[in-house]
Amino acid sequence: MADRTPLRGRGHYKAWRAIATRWMDNDVYGHVNNVVYYSFFDTAVNAWLVEHGLLDIERGPLIGLVVETGCTYARPVAFPEEVQAGIVATKIGNTSVRYDIGLFVKGNPQPAAQGFFVHVYVDRPSRRPQALAPEWKSTLRKIAGPDAG
Amino acid sequence: MADRTPLRGRGHYKAWRAIATRWMDNDVYGHVNNVVYYSFFDTAVNAWLVEHGLLDIERGPLIGLVVETGCTYARPVAFPEEVQAGIVATKIGNTSVRYDIGLFVKGNPQPAAQGFFVHVYVDRPSRRPQALAPEWKSTLRKIAGPDAG
Amino acid sequence: MADRTPLRGRGHYKAWRAIATRWMDNDVYGHVNNVVYYSFFDTAVNAWLVEHGLLDIERGPLIGLVVETGCTYARPVAFPEEVQAGIVATKIGNTSVRYDIGLFVKGNPQPAAQGFFVHVYVDRPSRRPQALAPEWKSTLRKIAGPDAG
Amino acid sequence: MADRTPLRGRGHYKAWRAIATRWMDNDVYGHVNNVVYYSFFDTAVNAWLVEHGLLDIERGPLIGLVVETGCTYARPVAFPEEVQAGIVATKIGNTSVRYDIGLFVKGNPQPAAQGFFVHVYVDRPSRRPQALAPEWKSTLRKIAGPDAG
Repeated sequence: MADRTPLRGRGHYKAWRAIATRWMDNDVYGHVNNVVYYSFFDTAVNAWLVEHGLLDIERGPLIGLVVETGCTYARPVAFPEEVQAGIVATKIGNTSVRYDIGLFVKGNPQPAAQGFFVHVYVDRPSRRPQALAPEWKSTLRKIAGPDAG
Repeated sequence: MADRTPLRGRGHYKAWRAIATRWMDNDVYGHVNNVVYYSFFDTAVNAWLVEHGLLDIERGPLIGLVVETGCTYARPVAFPEEVQAGIVATKIGNTSVRYDIGLFVKGNPQPAAQGFFVHVYVDRPSRRPQALAPEWKSTLRKIAGPDAG
Repeated sequence: MADRTPLRGRGHYKAWRAIATRWMDNDVYGHVNNVVYYSFFDTAVNAWLVEHGLLDIERGPLIGLVVETGCTYARPVAFPEEVQAGIVATKIGNTSVRYDIGLFVKGNPQPAAQGFFVHVYVDRPSRRPQALAPEWKSTLRKIAGPDAG
Repeated sequence: MADRTPLRGRGHYKAWRAIATRWMDNDVYGHVNNVVYYSFFDTAVNAWLVEHGLLDIERGPLIGLVVETGCTYARPVAFPEEVQAGIVATKIGNTSVRYDIGLFVKGNPQPAAQGFFVHVYVDRPSRRPQALAPEWKSTLRKIAGPDAG
């Protein structure tokens, strides 16, 4: 019944972020709760955008709204392990970008989970979609997959 | 680029749970963060299972592991609004169940988001998938959609 | 070694807010994690301020910054129990307010936890403390304890 | 009205843990929400205990229950900054330990916040307090402050 997408290795991803797990990430069954994985997605994508000068959380004219996300869970993760989140832009559209994210436990070549995250970029005051400026597109190409457009 | 599944109204869902939003659910853009929606999914499904005698979080022989989830975001939600989560079992398999979840703001007929949540039920000590017992299947049929099997 | 403050019953509090627990609130030991209690504090105080017209999260000129909090834990809480948070303003200062909060499980007269939460009210753009306007003080007196000033 | 305890510098603490902030840690005012600081406390203390062989989250005979916590907030922290959490055991009792925690933004000598966290160690099945074994006490002395007992 689960997603039949094959699991992708570390080579699929173009940029990485290390994220410490937290005590409260573990749920009653002793592993990081399924919800928290999306926080790793959110963190990996937004941190990359901030650190590459595209997103200014407080003052930038553009903000990214999330319109769709999904995740397939392959192996458990548990505090205090460190998560390494890989990202790749798989579709660079006119106003939106789709990112694939892979989550790996430090030292393990097999993914713990993989998913996607679709951002629509909107004007901050009106919240209307905005065409991505050339510097956004050229910067995003640094982490683009082969068919990202 | 987003999921083209049509948005489903309240009539699609078979059971409901009210969930208070929390101050910290709102992110820097003033709305409930995309991650938190999955916490509403998790809460609605598990609460229903606990309250219908299927899941005993501390001592039950069976636990539900999440293998796949996804969400399409349609309208923002903001603290202090109340969320109403509707659930319907759309696929009752041998060892797994797929639930659709719709999130609505109290008083609004239009969904704020919709998604799905796939649980595989496993034996607690071995974490191996277990065939669902007849009482699980008969109880789950109370919230089954037309093609749930 | 813990705080020797006696536990206070429901009669100590002046306003109430019901908060649904969530699946992921439970930590690996099967009870709501200690961190989450502070989210209940935050939610109860801010919801009261919003619903009484004092705080406008998006546009109001004043925002509340948290400068100190504390909590004593008395009894465990577990999902899917409902939490009832009682609040009382125990010190209404010139620019700050101290609230006591008691957390109770629905149906139980004994507190699960009690704590406090100190807000300093600041001008949104400058983040400088602002003297509370007369309508703030008069509204806050509706939930003031006997020595709140 | 806030706690008059003087702010303590990095030299007060005996062990450190780096914790990545996450996108959703930022609240609507653009800074890490007050609740999340307690997650840093929880994480720093428990990670130290796990990594020094005292706590085995899944199977250990002893678990740590939190009986009291508190925090004074001094400077804002914002995603994507990295938090460095310092810990020191300030009271090693018979069945409980009090830890002081200081939170610092990477590169800043001034604390963003400081607080405390009191654990009572209990027998896992009965949840009754247990006297700390000699190896617990000797290991904890590696991070003990001058008056920890």
